[in-house]
Amino acid sequence: MSKRTLIKNCIPEVGKEVIINGWVQTVRSHGKIAFLDVMDRSAIIQVVCTGEQLGDIRPQFVVSIIGIVANRPEKLINPNISTGGIELQANKINILSKAEELPFDMGSKDLNLQLPTLLDYRALTLKHPKVKMIFKIQSALVKEFRKAAEELECEEVFVSAIASGATEGGAEVFSIDYFGHRAFLTQSPQIYKQIMVGALERVFTIAKAYRAEPSVTTRHLTEATQMDIEMAFVTLEELLDSLEFVGVYMVKNVSEKYENILKEFNVEKPLISSTVPRLTLREAQAIITKRTGRNLSGELDLNPEDEKEICAWGKEEHQSDFVTITHFPTKKRAFYTMPDSNNPEYSLSYDLLFRGIEILSGSQRINEYEQLIESMKNKGVNPEKFNIYTMAFKYGMPPEGGFSFGLERLTMKLLDLQNIREASLFPRDMDRIDERLHPVHK
Amino acid sequence: MSKRTLIKNCIPEVGKEVIINGWVQTVRSHGKIAFLDVMDRSAIIQVVCTGEQLGDIRPQFVVSIIGIVANRPEKLINPNISTGGIELQANKINILSKAEELPFDMGSKDLNLQLPTLLDYRALTLKHPKVKMIFKIQSALVKEFRKAAEELECEEVFVSAIASGATEGGAEVFSIDYFGHRAFLTQSPQIYKQIMVGALERVFTIAKAYRAEPSVTTRHLTEATQMDIEMAFVTLEELLDSLEFVGVYMVKNVSEKYENILKEFNVEKPLISSTVPRLTLREAQAIITKRTGRNLSGELDLNPEDEKEICAWGKEEHQSDFVTITHFPTKKRAFYTMPDSNNPEYSLSYDLLFRGIEILSGSQRINEYEQLIESMKNKGVNPEKFNIYTMAFKYGMPPEGGFSFGLERLTMKLLDLQNIREASLFPRDMDRIDERLHPVHK
Repeated sequence: MSKRTLIKNCIPEVGKEVIINGWVQTVRSHGKIAFLDVMDRSAIIQVVCTGEQLGDIRPQFVVSIIGIVANRPEKLINPNISTGGIELQANKINILSKAEELPFDMGSKDLNLQLPTLLDYRALTLKHPKVKMIFKIQSALVKEFRKAAEELECEEVFVSAIASGATEGGAEVFSIDYFGHRAFLTQSPQIYKQIMVGALERVFTIAKAYRAEPSVTTRHLTEATQMDIEMAFVTLEELLDSLEFVGVYMVKNVSEKYENILKEFNVEKPLISSTVPRLTLREAQAIITKRTGRNLSGELDLNPEDEKEICAWGKEEHQSDFVTITHFPTKKRAFYTMPDSNNPEYSLSYDLLFRGIEILSGSQRINEYEQLIESMKNKGVNPEKFNIYTMAFKYGMPPEGGFSFGLERLTMKLLDLQNIREASLFPRDMDRIDERLHPVHK
Repeated sequence: MSKRTLIKNCIPEVGKEVIINGWVQTVRSHGKIAFLDVMDRSAIIQVVCTGEQLGDIRPQFVVSIIGIVANRPEKLINPNISTGGIELQANKINILSKAEELPFDMGSKDLNLQLPTLLDYRALTLKHPKVKMIFKIQSALVKEFRKAAEELECEEVFVSAIASGATEGGAEVFSIDYFGHRAFLTQSPQIYKQIMVGALERVFTIAKAYRAEPSVTTRHLTEATQMDIEMAFVTLEELLDSLEFVGVYMVKNVSEKYENILKEFNVEKPLISSTVPRLTLREAQAIITKRTGRNLSGELDLNPEDEKEICAWGKEEHQSDFVTITHFPTKKRAFYTMPDSNNPEYSLSYDLLFRGIEILSGSQRINEYEQLIESMKNKGVNPEKFNIYTMAFKYGMPPEGGFSFGLERLTMKLLDLQNIREASLFPRDMDRIDERLHPVHK
């Protein structure tokens, strides 16, 4: 017996000696006897040891413990954890790695820290069970996204995050010194996924999006993760069907598989109706006006308050946490967006809202070369910075469109987190790269 | 009948009318009658039409064709393609998107272009069937990597590509203007995956690695894709077992599933023995000296010629295209590498070679805080630039290690491509970001 047993596998080992490895979560010392909660990747277990064995062991010490698995007395059974019926009676505790005294309590159910502290101590706070759950949900969302994308017969592609031009236009872009040349971090994988759709017809990619927005909000990061799909030979209708399919697939499967985590976060199971309600922007605005009396005529987009209101409507009227909004004004959307041929002031664009916030954006794209060049010029984007992109349209680009989910936003809304930074392992914003940045004096 | 039929689904539709959408690959006009090869994401099909229907259709035009599926005459059956027994007799051809005259022939089996041309026209050359196969293999490798990582119970994490310091040390790093601060593109996800192993025990991540190496070789890119795994509570032996498991899993499964693509590229099925031969660097050097007479004493690493030679040995002596090399000199490896306690001049590090090239690198890591700080200082890395990283070691880091596969290199070697740029959709090097960069005059 010298091989480690995962904690979850101790349950059938009552009466036997095992070795477990893990992190000490809590220490309750009663002098001669002490109780440790020890956690590994599989589960958590109560360990009983003597005061002598305990020594100076503190929370977050990494230990390897040889002990006998025993049933707990009936009245001490903890029904809330899988190993609540057993405990480990330590024979020997080896310290594999020590931990300094913690700056705050990591042993309570919730980590009640202010956001700056949560992030200042990120390497520590990421070890808290409830923080880890956020990223369990996040990786599950990506997994379900990939499965949905494969059901749509999309092929995965890996594109570059370095470009010669600002891919979404605008000034909010990070510049790189590229061997003496000025290059940029891509604001999205947009131009590359469009090129790839010209080759592979249906693609998906999980990529970083970089936005140098000099503002701090609860729903923006300077580096975010996008889950993108792009498909050729599809109509607006089929695009809407596809994005709703993917959105519902992810949210439904993850919230069913991780019902326990949603409960931990006190969030309701998402409301998913058989069809997602769809509204044009103008229809949505009319509904909001009717509900609130606010006059939205002339507004070119939904503001955060509007998004909340129309989602409240979706929930009340359609029992749906999703609402799809279409036909945003052409002048509000990026150069690659296809105007509606029935009314070119509006575009074949869409957002998917979930619980009061936009979690997806997309459109049917302009696929005709001359129209694209003209649209770029109209939007102040220099086509010469995008020769590789426009080349794809010179050599046969089918009608196509796509969409993009924001992974951190979706994670945030599914768990009802207050700030998107909680849904990013290492969030970047204008004030922080891991550590806080000192103000720049210009 | 107004719905599109995928080309592969035309086979059972003989005698019926269908609509297909796709790209014209080749045009063979005989005046009154013409033949088109039309391709969609599922397959390719021969279309028969009149000269009038053909009009000015050229290769890469995007078309929607209504026609009758018919059996081909016996002697015209093409056994090399899945639809070789049928053809589509066009009733109506709609042009969805035109293509300019191509700068080179895209209709031949191989795209015989010089590398600069292949990349100058990347948006076009990516549409060639044989180029597409490269990226089919690439996405399959990633898929198998994820499956192998999940078999090892690793959890997927998404880490940042922006850091305050150079993550692997050294000067070969791209700097970013981050709101007036100097930041860097990460040379690897190393520090973040190590932090995460302190929280989740076993993680994997697929991330970009940026290296500002001012050199142009056939095996380096400035932006590459890494497939990383990091695991706690493992010995060197278990790390070697794990990396060989993942390497073999990917290569074996992909080459079995895509035998046809390997055949297209005239490469042999990879040689996989029941165990991968393992050698320390010194053992490998002794073998090379014995085989070639070259004196390698004092050499701290294998050069490309050595890697080829030791792989020739692995193939001849062990019928294995993989060879694992361990125990590189401590001074040649990064600061986080654990020295061998038996002989600290050497380290618990390893490379995996495949067909003459390193496709993986990794090590057991230093997991003790003071030792790590000392190692950083010895290597000229400022620990203060990595406070979030060193914090993870303050609060209980188990013994751990990991490894990292280079996706483009593995793709290149599996298909025996001559240059790594062929294995990247949009390769970046010091002379190119999509387009060639003009020389910088300083």
